[in-house]
Amino acid sequence: MKKLFAEFFGTFWLVFGGCGSAIFAAAFPELGIGFAGVALAFGLTVLTMAYAVGHISGGHFNPAVSFGLWAGGKFDAKDLFGYIIAQVLGGIVAAGALFIIVTGKSDFETIGGFASNGYGSLSPGGYSMMSGFIAEFLLTMFFLLIILGSTNERAPKGFAPIAIGLGLTLIHLISIPITNTSVNPARSTSQALFAGGAYISQLWLFWLAPIAGALVAGFVHKALFDKE
Amino acid sequence: MKKLFAEFFGTFWLVFGGCGSAIFAAAFPELGIGFAGVALAFGLTVLTMAYAVGHISGGHFNPAVSFGLWAGGKFDAKDLFGYIIAQVLGGIVAAGALFIIVTGKSDFETIGGFASNGYGSLSPGGYSMMSGFIAEFLLTMFFLLIILGSTNERAPKGFAPIAIGLGLTLIHLISIPITNTSVNPARSTSQALFAGGAYISQLWLFWLAPIAGALVAGFVHKALFDKE
Amino acid sequence: MKKLFAEFFGTFWLVFGGCGSAIFAAAFPELGIGFAGVALAFGLTVLTMAYAVGHISGGHFNPAVSFGLWAGGKFDAKDLFGYIIAQVLGGIVAAGALFIIVTGKSDFETIGGFASNGYGSLSPGGYSMMSGFIAEFLLTMFFLLIILGSTNERAPKGFAPIAIGLGLTLIHLISIPITNTSVNPARSTSQALFAGGAYISQLWLFWLAPIAGALVAGFVHKALFDKE
Amino acid sequence: MKKLFAEFFGTFWLVFGGCGSAIFAAAFPELGIGFAGVALAFGLTVLTMAYAVGHISGGHFNPAVSFGLWAGGKFDAKDLFGYIIAQVLGGIVAAGALFIIVTGKSDFETIGGFASNGYGSLSPGGYSMMSGFIAEFLLTMFFLLIILGSTNERAPKGFAPIAIGLGLTLIHLISIPITNTSVNPARSTSQALFAGGAYISQLWLFWLAPIAGALVAGFVHKALFDKE
Repeated sequence: MKKLFAEFFGTFWLVFGGCGSAIFAAAFPELGIGFAGVALAFGLTVLTMAYAVGHISGGHFNPAVSFGLWAGGKFDAKDLFGYIIAQVLGGIVAAGALFIIVTGKSDFETIGGFASNGYGSLSPGGYSMMSGFIAEFLLTMFFLLIILGSTNERAPKGFAPIAIGLGLTLIHLISIPITNTSVNPARSTSQALFAGGAYISQLWLFWLAPIAGALVAGFVHKALFDKE
Repeated sequence: MKKLFAEFFGTFWLVFGGCGSAIFAAAFPELGIGFAGVALAFGLTVLTMAYAVGHISGGHFNPAVSFGLWAGGKFDAKDLFGYIIAQVLGGIVAAGALFIIVTGKSDFETIGGFASNGYGSLSPGGYSMMSGFIAEFLLTMFFLLIILGSTNERAPKGFAPIAIGLGLTLIHLISIPITNTSVNPARSTSQALFAGGAYISQLWLFWLAPIAGALVAGFVHKALFDKE
Repeated sequence: MKKLFAEFFGTFWLVFGGCGSAIFAAAFPELGIGFAGVALAFGLTVLTMAYAVGHISGGHFNPAVSFGLWAGGKFDAKDLFGYIIAQVLGGIVAAGALFIIVTGKSDFETIGGFASNGYGSLSPGGYSMMSGFIAEFLLTMFFLLIILGSTNERAPKGFAPIAIGLGLTLIHLISIPITNTSVNPARSTSQALFAGGAYISQLWLFWLAPIAGALVAGFVHKALFDKE
Repeated sequence: MKKLFAEFFGTFWLVFGGCGSAIFAAAFPELGIGFAGVALAFGLTVLTMAYAVGHISGGHFNPAVSFGLWAGGKFDAKDLFGYIIAQVLGGIVAAGALFIIVTGKSDFETIGGFASNGYGSLSPGGYSMMSGFIAEFLLTMFFLLIILGSTNERAPKGFAPIAIGLGLTLIHLISIPITNTSVNPARSTSQALFAGGAYISQLWLFWLAPIAGALVAGFVHKALFDKE
């Protein structure tokens, strides 16, 4: 139960911090933090909570990570369901908090797409569904290779949250223009529920591509890089 | 006494560096560091001084942190008063140094709002009092969860200043548009005293919300995540 | 064999992440990450994969690094050829993935120079061949001094990927305007093959200068700084 | 002798990387790295070389640091002269390399002020001599408090280069508008020699203020924070 609370709080923080920085600060006139600032924010949500509660739940905060760790032989299948529920709930509650805050802006009109992920006409840079799928697949695959490698018993101790958090920053530096960067179905779901409409109809890709990439990474890591 | 000097210097550095970067460099024409640079500066004040004097005083530099650590069972109530006095004094002396430097600018006219925190008409992005309160409460609550978690005996040793400092950077990446980001009553007080007027009348929120969030985090951490 | 896979994946990630951030996100209207974001991305590719697979292959991801480590007495000459093949292949496959993604952009017309390196008329800032050569030579020389020094047995354990990754970020902060920053022949080759024409005719410099700088660093480190 | 080479290379890198990023990349049209990128570059020069050669020479790369460590009781007076010569030489040779590279730019006309430090009419933001002196004094004082504290035997092992390097980044985030940020007489001297004229006549401040601040920090640290 303690683990599920840790995953709930961690995913809350990932969505509140990462999506929040995008919603409040990315496009602030003149002084806004831009894509690079949002990329840093997403990464730091994971870096900070992995140091804070990683020793409790493992610090997944992401259904694709839980699937990938299972495929890599580092996570028990019987815990998958509980973790994913806690992650999705944490994301949705965070999105609700963001919604309440942003509606208190004096010139608030609409949340628009919130910080939703999308492809085709909903891609920030107009990238196709195929481009989006390949990007999400490859980026989540490497995210899991980083996670599985840096937490391996032969890697230096204690540094994994730095590698993993800054790895998520890197992933955002690459791909915000493509899909607004998901690699995390809980994060995508939390935003689409508030943005509604077309964003919900595209949600399948942000479950399918990240989890597929994560599973491949898990099997690759187990076959090639894990201890013999 | 040595501890109080450490808290004084640490909070001086937090205000001098964080608020100083905002006052001197945030909006410098063309090359300015923007909100993201200010966010980095605030975080690095804590990262650097936590490595420098954290082993002496614990490295709070913030009354809300002292309250939160007390609620979490990691700080003695009898030291609260001394710490808070040292923190507020350090902040005010730093604000004085910033004032002296900025008045030496050739085209200096007025400090305006200095780097004060505010809500409603004093919020950088025009966010309401309620939005500001929720943001300050939640952000300080997670700041304390990061502090309590990353300094826990089960977390990796030595990394806490990185998690905590970059956690403060993250908090600023999210919320500068909302309240100019406080999560620290000493920081808010130091600026409001120089900015005066309406900023002082809003100071209550930047004591109440951060301390309330910190207390909740302390109790949550003790109940859920601390060693049994 | 396991080592060659690690070098393949690592160099794939370096090119996919570093060049990808440049291609997709550097010049995105208004919110783009700019040279600083690209610099961060390149550095984080190495930081993350060095933590992930550094304990398997040493984490070179760069023919110049392999040559420099050989000159410094830390890498066996008989492994040089295999490593370089794996690195160049990893880079080329990554460039192919980038090509597929970018052609899915709704307003795609041409890849232009991709993220190629160049001098003279192909230098981002119009720097001469001589300026480009000196910059690539010196920067790779210091990159290897950082690698050899931070992995030395007398340096603190576990921190080398941070020093090396952020060292690569620093190198890009300096020299993107000069040559678009190579210090890595595999990275340069992967882009020139897709950009074609003049970029291929300049490729010699981005093999010669980095490897020369790396060899000098290897000999300097062995003579001056290695354990007696 | 090995130590002097380490200081020479380290200060070369500090000037080549820090000043180089300012000269080549800070104001590059549209995509330039700005003050924040330069701040990051300066910090990373020290972070990287402190991990690379810190175990050889201590990694000062700055006459003010050598003075401050002497005042704090951590450095022998008899080594001061040699260290400072090596630092100033390393800085000047780096400035020469930057000069050669920048003159190879197709539209090169003049180096202007290079990356020199200045006050009054030579301050980037028009700050007075007094403002510049106070800023340089305070920032170097805190730089040394960070160095002395994070290398103290009671601080976590191995993290000091992160605290010190990012501390220098923070210092630049604050004060580039004020004096273009020195806190390092070797860095200032290297640029003024090439910029000439008024920059040389202001050089005294960038020796006096940093060294004074460093000495105060050394005495403060020894009196208050060092082990009893």
